[in-house]
This record gives sequence, C-alpha cells and structure tokens, in this order.
Amino acid sequence: MNSLEGLPVAYFSEHDSADVVVGQNVNAKNERLRQVMDSVTRHLHAAIKEIEPTQEEWFEAIQFLTKTGHMCDDWRQEYILLSDVLGVSMLVDAINSRRPVGASENTVLGPFHVGDSPEYEMGTNICLDQKGEDMIVRGRVLDVDGNPLAGVKIDVWQANDEGFYDVQQKGIQPDFNLRGVFRTGEDGTYWFKAVRPKHYSIPDDGPVGALLEQLGRHPYRPAHLHYILSKDGYDTVTTHIFDPDDIYINNDAVFGVKESLIAEFVKVEDEARIKEAGFTNAYYWDVDFDFVLAPKS
Amino acid sequence: MNSLEGLPVAYFSEHDSADVVVGQNVNAKNERLRQVMDSVTRHLHAAIKEIEPTQEEWFEAIQFLTKTGHMCDDWRQEYILLSDVLGVSMLVDAINSRRPVGASENTVLGPFHVGDSPEYEMGTNICLDQKGEDMIVRGRVLDVDGNPLAGVKIDVWQANDEGFYDVQQKGIQPDFNLRGVFRTGEDGTYWFKAVRPKHYSIPDDGPVGALLEQLGRHPYRPAHLHYILSKDGYDTVTTHIFDPDDIYINNDAVFGVKESLIAEFVKVEDEARIKEAGFTNAYYWDVDFDFVLAPKS
Repeated sequence: MNSLEGLPVAYFSEHDSADVVVGQNVNAKNERLRQVMDSVTRHLHAAIKEIEPTQEEWFEAIQFLTKTGHMCDDWRQEYILLSDVLGVSMLVDAINSRRPVGASENTVLGPFHVGDSPEYEMGTNICLDQKGEDMIVRGRVLDVDGNPLAGVKIDVWQANDEGFYDVQQKGIQPDFNLRGVFRTGEDGTYWFKAVRPKHYSIPDDGPVGALLEQLGRHPYRPAHLHYILSKDGYDTVTTHIFDPDDIYINNDAVFGVKESLIAEFVKVEDEARIKEAGFTNAYYWDVDFDFVLAPKS
Repeated sequence: MNSLEGLPVAYFSEHDSADVVVGQNVNAKNERLRQVMDSVTRHLHAAIKEIEPTQEEWFEAIQFLTKTGHMCDDWRQEYILLSDVLGVSMLVDAINSRRPVGASENTVLGPFHVGDSPEYEMGTNICLDQKGEDMIVRGRVLDVDGNPLAGVKIDVWQANDEGFYDVQQKGIQPDFNLRGVFRTGEDGTYWFKAVRPKHYSIPDDGPVGALLEQLGRHPYRPAHLHYILSKDGYDTVTTHIFDPDDIYINNDAVFGVKESLIAEFVKVEDEARIKEAGFTNAYYWDVDFDFVLAPKS
C-alpha cells in the first residue's frame, strides 16, 4: 500500500480540479511518469473545461476509447492508428528527429517495414512480378557540406501499383516484392528499378475510420516510397518520398507529408532512354531524389 | 468517400502540427464533434510538446491505452476508472451540476446504484443483516430560502461495515441490503437507520491500479453514503455524504469529496437515547445532515 504521508488535502472543486488531482502525485515512484501525468492531467482538464461535455458526450468518449481498445489484437493496432490520424505519431517523430537545416527530414516508419529485406546490386529491379508502370529511382546521398557519402545503407520498400505491400498480399505478391537494401558507392549515388506506387487507405473499418468519416476526412495516404538511410556516425533517416501528382498529396490521412519530401515523377517516353534502362513498355517514370545525412548528434 | 473539396494543404511541420491536423476537419458532418476534436487535438499536441516523449514512451502510452481497453468487459469499465482517478468524472459532473451558492453539491453517481430499491417508511433500518455499528441518519431537505421541502424522494445506498455493497456480495449480503427510498414529510425531515459504512478500494488489479501504484497513490475511497434527492421543479442532487474520521477522507482516489459534503458522525453512548432509538448495543452513530435543493434551471 502507498503511504498517505505528505499528501495534500484533495477536496475537489471545479476551479482547482487539475491542481487537486496532480497534487496527489507527490509520492510518485517514477519521477518521469509524474511529470508526464501532471502534463496530461492539466491539458485534459483544460480541454474538458473548454468542451464542457454533457454526461452523454463523456460516455460517448468512454465508449470510443473502449471500442478502440477492443479493436486491437496481434494484427491490428487501432490506438496507433488513432495516434496517426491525430498527427500525434508525426509529432513524436518530429520531436525525436530534429536536424540541422538542409538535412533530410524524417517521417513515420509505418507498419510495413521488414527487417530482413534482400540486399541487391545497384540497379536491380525490386518489382518481382512485372506488374505496374516501370520506374527508375535514383539520386545521391550527401553530407551537410554537400560531399558524397559512400557505404550508406539504403533500405527501401513501397506499395505496388494497386496500393498493397507484399506483406498484405502473401501468396498474391511474391515475398519481398518491392523492397530491398542497397549501398551507395564512392560517388554517393544510388539507383534501382521498381514500379510507380499507388495511394492506399489506412484500415478504416474500426472506430478510427468512423471518426474520420464523421470529421469529413478520407482515409488515404498519397503514393510514396519508404526509405531508411543509415551510416555509422550519421543520424539515421527514416522517411518517405512522395508523388506530387497523387490526388491525396495535400491531405495525407496520417500527415506524413513534409514539403521537403515531395519528389518529382518525370515521364520518360524517349525510346533510346527506355531501351538503355532495359524496359520494354512505352514509357517509364524517372524519380531523382537526393538525401542529406547529418552527423550523429 | 469524403470529398477533398475545401481541404487546406496539410504538409506537416512540428511548429504548426495542431493547425495542420484540425485544418482537415473543415468538412466535418457533425459540428459539435469538430469542436470537440479541435480542442482535444490542440491540447493533445500541447501536452506532447511539453512532455517531448521518446518513441519508447509513446509506445508505452499506446500499450497502456490498449491494455485499458482490453480490461473492459460487461462487468468492468477500466476507462471509467481511468476517468475517475484523473478527476475527469468529477470535473464533468461539476460542469453539469453548477448550482447557486448554498445549494447542495453533486458528486459522482458511482457504479453501485440500482433503480428498484424498496421504498420504506421513515425510520426504517436499511441494514438487513444486523452486521456493523448502528447508525441513525437524519436531517432536513430545504429550498434555497430555507423552507422545508415535502415529498422529496430520497434514494440512499451505501457499503457495509466491510466496505462492500450488496451487489458486490450476492448471496453473502441480503438483496437490497443498505439501500432504500424515503420521502420527506411536510416538515422536510428524513431519517433512517443503517450501519456505519467503511472505506473501500476501487478495482486496482488492472492498468489503472498499476498507474496509481507508480504514482504513489492508494486506491481507496473514504467511507460515505450515497444520495439521490429529487422533486419535481427542483434540480436533482446526486451526491454522497462523507465520514470525516475516515483515514482516506483527505485523499479520495476518485476525488469525490467536496468540503460541503463532509458530515459529522457523533458517537451516542447515552442509554436513554440508545433505547429510544431501538438499538441494543453500547453506542450508535448519529449523523445529522441537511440538503438544499435549487429550483430547476
């Protein structure tokens, strides 16, 4: 049992509600938790005083939180989804990845990364089922002074031309489709072949989807490629690059888009370049995107 | 599908994070929900900017919310418990029961009220198993001008001398033990017999109990009697009266205590008064508490 010693008197009043509550945390065993709960409690009470919920609205909130919990299992994490659509995941990511101006910015990891992607020679086509519109992705990895960085590990993964990751379509897509690991050479360049990704919906058949619907918001993420760029001595960058022509580019349901992460998808119809790239269709998409790594802070 | 029309560009930045998120609610189908989510989002982002959680702390929060949801079933509502121990239930109750100075104050209903308590003649002993220390509870119900109010329905219930309600001990306590309905007479008075209640713990074997433990807080509620006082034309009062000698009186785990709700439990050892009350033990507790009802607002 916890001690009553040192606890202030906690008679409740509407006016002092937050002070009364946080005052009871003086004997906290975990000082960081005390800080966190002080802040959470004060902001929660401030929000409630602003909202002035009816008892029915309060109970709706209780039911929403309960349903969101009940939706979670080994395969579905509805609370992370809630964090995502409220911009909380992006905010926490931003707070934990502040970098010097000019360095590549982070965005959220997302749930579709796998740890054991195959490592490929530069230029390999990571699309294993020849489905979709051909694409070449290329660029350089530099330090903040503009010098090329060799030996940077580039872990990439993306959805296919229908907006699905391989792990969502086991048995339909080949294993490890549209993912791979590359390493930059001495000149800091990278390049690989793939197919143009498509936008997709976050899971919207739960309480979070119902909330978005009532808020008049769609559940789509604009088309993107995921990257993790890492090299000893440098701050690891976990990010996406985005397709500016996607209809959802301005309204990512999870707020993953940062202006600096918008790439350009250039249509190449020149037969010589198509042939040189080793493609056989009437066009391909050329994406040229550089990254800048900051020294480990 | 919801429309993209009118949506502002929502590229994320740490600085404008809350604006970026709430900006996407412009097409909300429910204007009240939009207001609520604007306020919730802004305060949530403000709290996160203050806390600056690590990714691990963020995930701990996700897991806490998930576990709290998983703890909820038909018999246990861990999210209401969380609302209770953070003072949120009391705050929502206070916001919805503002009254003129002098009128009796509300406190939380709690989960142990039943709708079909037996109605008794004034003076009845609601303790059906003769277990505990005898008590007489009495007082008057007045209007804000001090006039007695006749025909006020008084619905009372309480824990027994071990801190359990009848509904928690089916088969151990008699049904409807320590609960009943009374109606004030022309002089506005009420009185009934019972036993002195004891403090008890809220359910503390779940995530909320673990949180209290880490915050150095105990899970106890000081001894109290519950009342609902109702009369047509008057604001219904849902409240408790509290035992000032209880060791937890200053630190109710759910912040139910308001200063105006603290009663006095006077020990009566006078043989004549004991006999007059119809008791046979060496003493009884005398509790005299008046209520004031405000006109319906």
